[in-house]
This record gives sequence, C-alpha cells and structure tokens, in this order.
Amino acid sequence: MRYSKLFGKTVREAPKEAQTISHKLLYQAGYIRESSSGRYYLLPLGMLVMSKIIDIVRTEMDKAGAQEMLTPVLHPIELWKETNRTRSTGFELTTVKDRRGAKFALGGTAEEMIVDVVRKFQETYKDLPFNIYQFSQKFRDELRAKGGLLRLREFMMKDAYSFHATEADFKREYQNMKQTYTKIFKLLGLETVIVESDNGYIGGEYCHEFVVESEEGESKYFTDGHGYFAHEDVVKFTPSEVKKDEVLMPMKDVEGKGIIGVEELAKYLNIPVEKTTKTILFETDTGQVIAAVIRGGYDINETKLKKIVHCHEFKLASPEVVRKLTNAEVGYAGALNLPREVKLFFDWTTANRTNFEMGANKTNFHTINVNFDRDLPIPEKFYDFAIPNKGDIGPNGYQLDIKKGIEVGNIFQLGHHYTSLMKNAHFTDKDGELKKYYMGCYGIGIARTMAAVVEKHHDNKGIIWPKSVTPYDVHLISIGTDESVVKRADEVYQQLERQGLSVLYDDRETARPGEKFSDFELIGIPIRLVVSAKTGDKVEVKKRTESTHSTLEVEQLRHLG
Amino acid sequence: MRYSKLFGKTVREAPKEAQTISHKLLYQAGYIRESSSGRYYLLPLGMLVMSKIIDIVRTEMDKAGAQEMLTPVLHPIELWKETNRTRSTGFELTTVKDRRGAKFALGGTAEEMIVDVVRKFQETYKDLPFNIYQFSQKFRDELRAKGGLLRLREFMMKDAYSFHATEADFKREYQNMKQTYTKIFKLLGLETVIVESDNGYIGGEYCHEFVVESEEGESKYFTDGHGYFAHEDVVKFTPSEVKKDEVLMPMKDVEGKGIIGVEELAKYLNIPVEKTTKTILFETDTGQVIAAVIRGGYDINETKLKKIVHCHEFKLASPEVVRKLTNAEVGYAGALNLPREVKLFFDWTTANRTNFEMGANKTNFHTINVNFDRDLPIPEKFYDFAIPNKGDIGPNGYQLDIKKGIEVGNIFQLGHHYTSLMKNAHFTDKDGELKKYYMGCYGIGIARTMAAVVEKHHDNKGIIWPKSVTPYDVHLISIGTDESVVKRADEVYQQLERQGLSVLYDDRETARPGEKFSDFELIGIPIRLVVSAKTGDKVEVKKRTESTHSTLEVEQLRHLG
Repeated sequence: MRYSKLFGKTVREAPKEAQTISHKLLYQAGYIRESSSGRYYLLPLGMLVMSKIIDIVRTEMDKAGAQEMLTPVLHPIELWKETNRTRSTGFELTTVKDRRGAKFALGGTAEEMIVDVVRKFQETYKDLPFNIYQFSQKFRDELRAKGGLLRLREFMMKDAYSFHATEADFKREYQNMKQTYTKIFKLLGLETVIVESDNGYIGGEYCHEFVVESEEGESKYFTDGHGYFAHEDVVKFTPSEVKKDEVLMPMKDVEGKGIIGVEELAKYLNIPVEKTTKTILFETDTGQVIAAVIRGGYDINETKLKKIVHCHEFKLASPEVVRKLTNAEVGYAGALNLPREVKLFFDWTTANRTNFEMGANKTNFHTINVNFDRDLPIPEKFYDFAIPNKGDIGPNGYQLDIKKGIEVGNIFQLGHHYTSLMKNAHFTDKDGELKKYYMGCYGIGIARTMAAVVEKHHDNKGIIWPKSVTPYDVHLISIGTDESVVKRADEVYQQLERQGLSVLYDDRETARPGEKFSDFELIGIPIRLVVSAKTGDKVEVKKRTESTHSTLEVEQLRHLG
Repeated sequence: MRYSKLFGKTVREAPKEAQTISHKLLYQAGYIRESSSGRYYLLPLGMLVMSKIIDIVRTEMDKAGAQEMLTPVLHPIELWKETNRTRSTGFELTTVKDRRGAKFALGGTAEEMIVDVVRKFQETYKDLPFNIYQFSQKFRDELRAKGGLLRLREFMMKDAYSFHATEADFKREYQNMKQTYTKIFKLLGLETVIVESDNGYIGGEYCHEFVVESEEGESKYFTDGHGYFAHEDVVKFTPSEVKKDEVLMPMKDVEGKGIIGVEELAKYLNIPVEKTTKTILFETDTGQVIAAVIRGGYDINETKLKKIVHCHEFKLASPEVVRKLTNAEVGYAGALNLPREVKLFFDWTTANRTNFEMGANKTNFHTINVNFDRDLPIPEKFYDFAIPNKGDIGPNGYQLDIKKGIEVGNIFQLGHHYTSLMKNAHFTDKDGELKKYYMGCYGIGIARTMAAVVEKHHDNKGIIWPKSVTPYDVHLISIGTDESVVKRADEVYQQLERQGLSVLYDDRETARPGEKFSDFELIGIPIRLVVSAKTGDKVEVKKRTESTHSTLEVEQLRHLG
C-alpha cells in the first residue's frame, strides 16, 4: 500500500476527550474516527488489525472444534420475552419496529437466537455436543461510553454457544474454551488472567472473565498471588478483625454536626474507624426501600447487594425518602428504630463488634456504644456485600491485592437456564427421552481487544504492534526525491510484495524524513525499512523496539513476514 | 468436519413457502433457516460458502486498489437529513432512538456515513483518488420479502465508495470496477450482463446493474442481442407504428358496459388494440392527482413515470377520487374533459395515431375516433414511461427481447450529488482551492449472490457448488460399520486434511449408504470420495456432475483442493 493513497493518515493532535492511551494513539495514527459517542469508524489501517484479530480468533475456535455461523442483527422481541430478558439485560435493550409493526431487539448478546435456531432441528444425543459461534456487531445502549474502543455502544464481538447432553460434557468444553481463550490472547500479545466473575444478565451459575491488567480497565478484581483471581462482584474474603471491648458501654446519642465521612467521624468520636457503621438506603425497582448496613472503612459492591436483595436495579434513596423514613437529613441513618417497612441487610463486616457507632436517625446525631443483642436484635443472617480492602484475607488464606483490568473475554456456564425458559429446546437422548440441552457461552470483545493490545504495546512515540496483528509486515520509507532513489524504492516495494510481505510504503515526495520516521513510530508497524541515496542496492532495516539498524539485501527480508 | 457433529443437517422437506430452487435447496441441505420474514440464520455450511464469496470479493477489490474499512450500523439521523434522504430512500428507513434520545437510521446504504468520515480529514489532491469499501449487514424494510436469500430485509452487502478530483478520474475507476465486478462474478461461477439501470434513491446520473439471467430474478431488462442491455426502468425504444387513417371520423361516445381490458374492448369496438388508450389516475405523495395516458397494449413503468412527475411515491387514485374527478366509475377515465387540476402526462405511444379510443369519463362509455388537435390539444410533450413489448425496436435499431434476472451488483455514478448536499465535503486542489469530491459507489449483495449461484448451479438432486465457493473441497463417505472400514475412513480423513484439503466426512454409523449418497448430492460439494470394504487401500472418486467414478490413491487427491 502506498501511503500517499492510504485513506486515513496520521494527525499530530488527539481529540480533547481522548483520555486513554489507546484512544489517543489509534486516533492520531489513523486507525479510528468517532461517528457518534461510543460508535466508531474503523479506517483501513484499523480494519487490517481487526481482520487479523478476527482471523486468529476464528482459526483457534475452529481448531477447538467450534463452527462459525451468523444470526440476524434484528432479534424478534418474542424470543427475549420467552426468557424475561426484555427488562433485565443489565444493558439497555434497543428496540425497533418495522413497517408491519413487528418489534425487534438490536442484538446485544444472542442466547435466545441461538437456542431458537437450534430448536428448529430435531437433534439427538448423536448430534451433540456442538459449539457454534459468530462474529457480529453488538449493540449495548450504555449510559457512559468512553475510552475510545474500550467501552462502546456498538462493537464487533465473537460470541459462541455450546450445547451438551450432560453437565460433565459441558465442563470438558468449558476447559477447552478456557485453554483456547488463553492461547488466543497470547497469540495477540496479551497476558490474561482468568477471573471469577458475576454472571450478570446472562444467567447460569458461574463464569469467568479474561482480564488484561491495566489501569485503564473498568474491571476491578482481587488476587491473592497464589492463583485466586476474583472480580469485586464475587470476591470472597474475611474482614479484618475488630478488637472487642470487654465491657459493654452504655449506648448514647452524641451530636456531630456537619461531620462528613467515617474518618472524620471516628476522629471526632475518638473511636477506631472500624467501630463506625454506614447505613445506606436504596429504592429497588419494585418500589421497596432497603437499608444496607456495612462497617466504616468498607464499601458496598452493588452487584453483590442486588443479588442478595433479588432485584435488577436500585438507586440511592432520595433525600425525601430518607427524611421520611429516618426522620433525619441524609447522613444520619442507622439500623436502630427504622420503620419495619425498611428491610435491613447487614454485611458481615458489621458482625463481631462491640460498642460500635451508628447513625441516630436524628439530624446531626450519632449513636455510640451500640451492641447487638442488647440494643439491636442479632440479624438472622449477615450477608457478604462488601468490597474487600487490600490486605484482607482471601478464601485460600492469603492476603488480597487489588487490580484493575480490561475484560477482553468471558466464559459462562448457562446450564439449563435458557433451555428451561424457552419452549422445545430439547434433544432426544439415548433412552428416547426428550431432554433439555445443557449450555455454555463464550465471548470475546474484538474491538476492545484491539484497544487492549495498544494499551499494552506502545511507548511515548506511538503504537508497537505485535507481529501477529500488525496492519502491514514492514514499513518502507523512501528518503529523497532523486529519480534514482524513487525508482529504487519502487523496485524494493514491488520485490517485497512479490516475496509475500505486506508493505506500507511511504512514498510521499513532499514529506520530510523526520515526518516519515515519526509516522512510522506512531503507526507502530514492527519493522522499518529505509531506501535512500546512501543505501545503494541494499535496504536499511530497523525494528520499532530497537535503536540500532542494519543493512540487508532485499532477499534477506523474506523471513520478516 | 465430521458430519455427525455438524450443526445443521439435511432434511427431506422444504418449507411450504419456499418457491425458488435456491430457497428450497439451501434449506433442505442445511445452509439457512429463517429467523423472521426476510431475515435468515446462516448455518455453518452456509457460513462457509458466504465466507468464500466474501474472500473472493475482498481479494479482487484489494487487487483493484480499494481499501476495506467499517462504518457503524447505527447512522446518526442528522446525516440523512443533510441529504434529504429521510423520506426518499426507495426503501423504508428503520430508525431507533437510544436512551439519551439520539435518533439513528439502521444502515441500508452508507453514502452519508462515508462522506462524513472522509470530511473529517483535510485531504488534498495528492491523497486522491481512493476507493473505500466494507462488508456489513444492511437493513431494508421491504414490503415483501420472499425467495429465501433473493430478497431480504437484512443482508450482507459489500459497498464501496470512490472519491476523485475530477470526473475523468472517476470514469477510469468506473471502468476499473466494471471489470473487477465481471471478474468477481466469473470467479463465483456467474455469467453477468451489465444492464443500464435507474439510479433510484442513490442519486447521481447513471448506473449499471450486474444481472444474472434467471426466471427467479426480479430485475426485468431488455436486450437487443447486439450489446444493448437496459433495465425496464430506463430502456429506450421506438413504439410499433400504428397505421393512420386517411379520413378523420366523427368523434362519438359508445356504450360498452362491463367490458374489461383493452383486448375485449378492441374486439367489441371492432378496432385494433393499438387504437385503444388507457388513462390512469395516480395520487402523488404531495397530494396531487395526475393522469397517465398510454396506448392500449403497453404498460406503464412506474419508475419512469415517477421521475417524469418528480415524485418519490404515488399510488393508484382511490375509486372515490376517480369518481369525483371523472364523474364515472373506475375504468372509464379519459383525457377529454378532465378537470384542470388533474395534470395530464401522455406517453409517446399515444402519439401519431388517428381515430383512437379513450375512456369517456362517463360510466360504461368510451369515446371513439378521438384525434389530437381536433378534439384534444396536442400535448406540449409526449413522455416515455412505457414498458416496451418484445420485438419493439431498441435505440440501436435492433429488436428488443425481454429477460428476467437477479441483480447481484450495481455501480453508480454519484458525481457531486452527496458532496454538494453535505457540508465541508471538499479537498484542496492543486490551485489551492477547496473543491467538492466527485464520487462513485459500487455494491454487491453477498447473500443474494449466494442464492444466484444455487439458481445457476444445481440439478434435480441438489446443489452443485462451483469449486471456488464449495463449503468443503471433498465429501468423504464411509460405507459399512466394520472396524477396518471405520479405521481406514478415519485415516483417509486425517490424511486428506494433512494434505490441505477441507473435508466433510460423513462418518455416521447408522445412516444407510443411499442416505449418505443423496445427502452428498443435496449438499453439493463437487467431489465425492468413498471408503468401503471394497476400496482397500484406495479411495473411490466421483464428481458431482459425472456418473462414473475412478479409484485413486489418497496422495493422488492432493490436487483436488
């Protein structure tokens, strides 16, 4: 490809809203442009990288025995009604009506569609197992889209769905996909960790995320350095111990006007932070108000809490609701004397404490020296909805560390979730009986993976593509406009292509050498070749990651592809 | 691929609604399943064929110098407003709103999007020309979807858009694309003719369809056997001559109650059909009523007429409107004495006649011996909105024949149509001036092409894929369940794959040989291989198109790929 004719050339400035490295570099180097917020054009360079990622994913999925197919983008809404997902997807479903009034969802995930096509066949145990997958644009009407390709509203995804006669057979495929995914990401230049995570809107009982560690990622997970990786939504831990007092002190209300936050409060009351308590009121999607009670120094994980409360959505109770139910301004709620209509949920960080503090349900007042049993009934159950702190002990007895990462893939056990909710989703088993398929599903975000590669492979000058996904094998630069140089560079370009290398050839006659060199660094092709008046019948070769160059015959470049 | 594990096996019966051969065969052989009307699942076998078609199109587009990219599916509606296409697309635009209220069109064609991404760059004449293309799902909310993959509401399309400094440079690219398309279709096993056609909702001045002759096609076109091919919407011709009478007879009204159609009328009135006249009233999208007047024996082409009337949509006037304007029931309208508010359009088939018939605008009555000038002012202009009859003379002096075909591709001159309507769609020319891009666009319907291949390549037993798009190179069948046969067939399967051939291996132990053979014929892979107790250390080889077979060593099959 002659750079002079490439559509989508480099620019010096990134847009103001670009905050992540991958967004900036992919923009400046001419890989992407924004269409609307969260929806991007892939320019020709970006398309080449995307295609290479897709090819690698496809090759490994096929090797693993999966079969590619394609579903329509418009999903009949009736299918989503069968599984009660029209309101509980976790992402906003975008729907359209056609001119005949039929309603469709824009596909954000395809469990219903795939079960639908499978149930059109009279399968028997002999046809099982199979794993079918597709590459297609997915639509998620996210509230916030940011970070370039890291969080999109429309994006290319590989989604796979496996069908089995038994759970045991599914478990074998789950391992197969785990290994396949690890291999795929490795081929793409990404080290991933496999993180236990929340099944969310997908259903099923357990699932894992493939995460690339990165400060730009939105996945917060914990690891104990001994093989335990868990997303904050599912992480298990033991809260730090709180020293118990031998004597239970008399409970009393203390004024603490205008004190904000547990740190300040603890200091004011002269108690350790772990004796403070936060009581937070939420309104659920069914109109109920609940109070979540957690130890000061810990934060609530809303996903954990939603699961405990059995609701899809909730929000912080409004000041009006708080005032009505606690008789106090926001900031002074406590579990004592709340109306019975407010259901209480105690996090287990609040257990095993004595003489602890709580909001007094009275503006400006806190109650101190509260004790379970004496002042407050011991809850039937202490729940786990807290986010651990760094250093808390994980389930295997080791201290937990906190990490952030980019979720590039995920694998889900679905079990009989969809095949129970959807009619006729069964096969004929050996015994002649109709049985529900046991299912799994497996996704890779292709566009986000592309951004993750850039997050991990760049320097302060630009992108450094791994060889597996570089848009072109080599970046050929001609220096000088002498006829002999131009002729020689043209020859080298053609010879390289004949040798089977793909070449980005910067043939611009008006660009300065410095401009060409910095464009090479920005675009990130791993190998630079230079033809100039000095290179004679050879070519100067330099790697993107090295500062020294060598001089070689064109024939010697054959192996670079 | 082991057939036992393939998702999407053959079935004996096609669905009742399947009327075309390609719909029936693609369904029965396990290539497609319907999701909703006009939207199909591509099963794994179908996906393999689609991918091969895409690969061929991509390879040839790249060779022709085009660059692949990708636009979002959701197009900001503002872009379609810039070009006034929100109501004049020719297909129903499907729109969606996101949760923030932003409105989008589901992409049915991408001129606006592509101009939008191009204008984000400060291009100069040195960056031109370029041709950018994509493969993506397109959405057209057609009133009728039928024929399986022949007429879809959601379909895979390759659409390309070229940008030029001058018309001359565009014309070079138009020829380049013409040749590229012809080559692509030839590689896919399709003979295409290049038919002058209507630019429709795309804009621009001229365009051509690539058509595969077929009775199942919806494109009606004319050819003179001497290189003239024109779609009925744009065909030029000379109507057959009508013998003129020497004496103009007195005009009079004749009763003709209940006579339907011009044939019956001509017989009743004892005049030739060509002396009859049809006057048809239409209501346009702006609420105007027009009367189209055409000679009996000719039909109106609505696309030609709409262009003459300058309206996007019209419909036959309702009986109420006809009654009000003609004072008669439907069937008796004529150009005589119509209210002035009805604008008259005369087709040129009505010219050069004497003593002709017309509806009398009186229920049950026809006026005969009408003559221009004497009874009716000679129209300022006779228009061309008739469909020629077979045998009419084309523009080059030869008789026209009528054909039907499947439109698999099209190429459009767009000129400055979009770059005039859209702001800032300009480049800097050599003289430093900002100039509008000169554009062309070029489409291939990938799914429809797949159906066209089946329409042209099948027999009464099933599909016969051209080698270029076969889902697998060879179809291996094991006959018998003896351990030695199974072992030998497994070995051959592995050996063939090692040799680089893709194999569909019918390894089913319970299927009868006859069943396996007819599945082979239905699925349509061009080469059948059989391993049985009789084949020993060789393999029986038979082509799908031949009835004789030979016996070869596995190594000798290497060349079949």
